[in-house]
Amino acid sequence: MAPVPKPTSDEGAIRAAMDAWARAVHDKDVDAVMKLYADDFVGYDMIAPLAHRGAAAYRKVFQDWFAAIEGPIEQEPRDVRIAAGGEVAFAHGLFRMRSRSRKGGDNDYWIRVTIGLRKRGADWKIVHEHASVPFDMKTRKALLDIKP
Amino acid sequence: MAPVPKPTSDEGAIRAAMDAWARAVHDKDVDAVMKLYADDFVGYDMIAPLAHRGAAAYRKVFQDWFAAIEGPIEQEPRDVRIAAGGEVAFAHGLFRMRSRSRKGGDNDYWIRVTIGLRKRGADWKIVHEHASVPFDMKTRKALLDIKP
Repeated sequence: MAPVPKPTSDEGAIRAAMDAWARAVHDKDVDAVMKLYADDFVGYDMIAPLAHRGAAAYRKVFQDWFAAIEGPIEQEPRDVRIAAGGEVAFAHGLFRMRSRSRKGGDNDYWIRVTIGLRKRGADWKIVHEHASVPFDMKTRKALLDIKP
Repeated sequence: MAPVPKPTSDEGAIRAAMDAWARAVHDKDVDAVMKLYADDFVGYDMIAPLAHRGAAAYRKVFQDWFAAIEGPIEQEPRDVRIAAGGEVAFAHGLFRMRSRSRKGGDNDYWIRVTIGLRKRGADWKIVHEHASVPFDMKTRKALLDIKP
């Protein structure tokens, strides 16, 4: 008898979704990225506005980001934690993002990312994402050079 | 026969925890706030560092915040969404925070907050929190005057 395949754990499925996100962002593949998001997604991004509502609004964020970058976007995760229940999950971690701007200049900064997911049919979909950098209390400037 | 009490839903329990947080912050009651956090908590705050690890480190964040404020800290939630499974939950929303600094001056700004929770015994505990404001791409300044 053929061995029964071990079912993928929810945590493993979340990790696979995060890996797929990293690959899609590396390749600047908007369609591949957007497959991971639910239509009723709400995102809090590093830059304004306070909130993006709906996957269509977030597609524009990725399009603008990818258009400004020459070549791939490299990502290095650190201290990733995943909490997965049967239908609801979240994950968070620090991510070093490295790329080259089309206008010239290298980008290299660490961000904090939290994602919230729901199981929709057989797939986990990202329904919420929160990405940010902290700011300095005195200068009010975003700390794009802070390291973990 | 006495009516059987309707069990509190998980979503209701999360909402109750958020209300308890708002009350404790309003009253600047550090012990009441910290009851809501798990020992193995990881927090991403508006200001540096990138991450706070452990509830003890976060207690210091609340102590410093509360010490800088004269009187209560008012909170106005907007667009709060809760996703609760049996053991894992997350919630997010926009919050207007208003207070008066001891040094003088009124604080009035909107932040984005995401929390991740796990059921520990009978109680839901906050194991992760991410609070931020977006920044302006040109000036690199944190947008403390942005409104929803």
